[in-house]
Amino acid sequence: MPHVVVLYSGNLDAAMAEHGADMPTYCRRTADALLAVRDEQDRQVFPTGGVRVLAYPAAHFAVADGSGDFGFIYVQLRMGRGRSAAVHQRAGEALAGAARQHFAPLMAHRKLGLTVQIDEGQEVFDAKLGNLHPMFSKA
Amino acid sequence: MPHVVVLYSGNLDAAMAEHGADMPTYCRRTADALLAVRDEQDRQVFPTGGVRVLAYPAAHFAVADGSGDFGFIYVQLRMGRGRSAAVHQRAGEALAGAARQHFAPLMAHRKLGLTVQIDEGQEVFDAKLGNLHPMFSKA
Amino acid sequence: MPHVVVLYSGNLDAAMAEHGADMPTYCRRTADALLAVRDEQDRQVFPTGGVRVLAYPAAHFAVADGSGDFGFIYVQLRMGRGRSAAVHQRAGEALAGAARQHFAPLMAHRKLGLTVQIDEGQEVFDAKLGNLHPMFSKA
Repeated sequence: MPHVVVLYSGNLDAAMAEHGADMPTYCRRTADALLAVRDEQDRQVFPTGGVRVLAYPAAHFAVADGSGDFGFIYVQLRMGRGRSAAVHQRAGEALAGAARQHFAPLMAHRKLGLTVQIDEGQEVFDAKLGNLHPMFSKA
Repeated sequence: MPHVVVLYSGNLDAAMAEHGADMPTYCRRTADALLAVRDEQDRQVFPTGGVRVLAYPAAHFAVADGSGDFGFIYVQLRMGRGRSAAVHQRAGEALAGAARQHFAPLMAHRKLGLTVQIDEGQEVFDAKLGNLHPMFSKA
Repeated sequence: MPHVVVLYSGNLDAAMAEHGADMPTYCRRTADALLAVRDEQDRQVFPTGGVRVLAYPAAHFAVADGSGDFGFIYVQLRMGRGRSAAVHQRAGEALAGAARQHFAPLMAHRKLGLTVQIDEGQEVFDAKLGNLHPMFSKA
C-alpha cells in the first residue's frame, strides 16, 4: 500500500500519446502526487517504498451505448485501513488533481469517462516480502 | 459505475474467435445487457455514460491442477452502494444470461471455469472527472 | 474462488526469465500451493476446479520515487467468506512461501516490492456457469 491500478480502454493509447497525455508520464505524476500527501501532523502519508502505480490498457472493451468511439479511464487507489477521513480526502484530491491536469489535453479531443476512487483494504492476510521498502525506511 | 472487469486465461482468445464467442462482441453484449436492467419502478438502473466493460487476457496463468488445457473467465461487476437485493439479482441475471449465451459455443469445445460476481463499491473517495456522462444525462 | 490475480511491473519479465523466476512457473506453483492447503479437519480447502491464477504485467507503471529501475509484484487472493482465521493464515503462508521461494533468485539481482494479500469476497451476486468444476467434483 498504497496501490494504484489504472484500467482503461485500449483505444486511448494512441490519442494519449498524440495529445501529450501519455500513460507512463501519468503513472509517474500520480506516484509523485501520492508521495506529496501529508497528514494532519504534516507527516508523509504513504511510505516511499510502498507506492506503485500499475496501468493496464484493456485489449477488449465496450463503453456506454457504443454510439461513438468513447474511452474510459478508471483509477483505483487501495490504501491501508484506519486513516482519517481527512487523509482520504487529501489523497483523493491529489489523485483527482493529477488525473484532471494530465488528461485535460486528451479530453479536449475525446469523449471519455474518468473515475477516481479510493478503497480501504480489508485484507485478512498481508505479507510484505520484498527488498524495496527497507531502502527507503528511516534509520 | 457500473464497472465490469473481465479477467480470463489467455489460452481462450483463439478458441473464442474460432467458435463465434469472441471477447469484443461479449463486451458489447454485456454493456447492452446492463443498459437494459430496470429497477422495481421500471427505471434504467445504470446510467448510460457510466457503463464500461474492460476485458483482459492474462499473459500467464494456471487453472485447476494443470491436468489439461483448461481456461477460466471471471466477470466482475462493481456497482454503487445502496441498491436493493432485487436490483442486484436482476443485474446478476443479466450478466449471467449474457455470459451463458455468449460462451455456450466455446464450452461445447473447451473445459473452462466461468464465474460472474457482483460487488458493491465501498469506496471512501469518488470523483467523476470525465466528459462522457453529460452526453447522456437527461435535460 | 479461490481467485489469484498477480499484478506486476512489466520491467520484471525479462529479469524473471533470466534468473529462473519466470511467471508461468510461478502461476503453477501458486496454484499447487493453494491446492495443498488443508483445514483444521485435514480437508482440502480450495476445490480443484475453482483454482485459477492470472498474472498481468503492467504496460505502464511507476514505483516508489523513480530513483531506480524498481519493480513491484502484487499477489492478491480472493477467497470465499466464512473461513476461519486459521485457514486464512494457512492460505497466506502457502502463498507467501511460494512467492518467497520463487522470487528469491530475482531479488538477489533486483530491488522490488512483493506484497501478498488475501481478501474475503463480499459479493452480492455469484454464479458459477462453467463446465470445469464438475470434472473435479467427488461422486
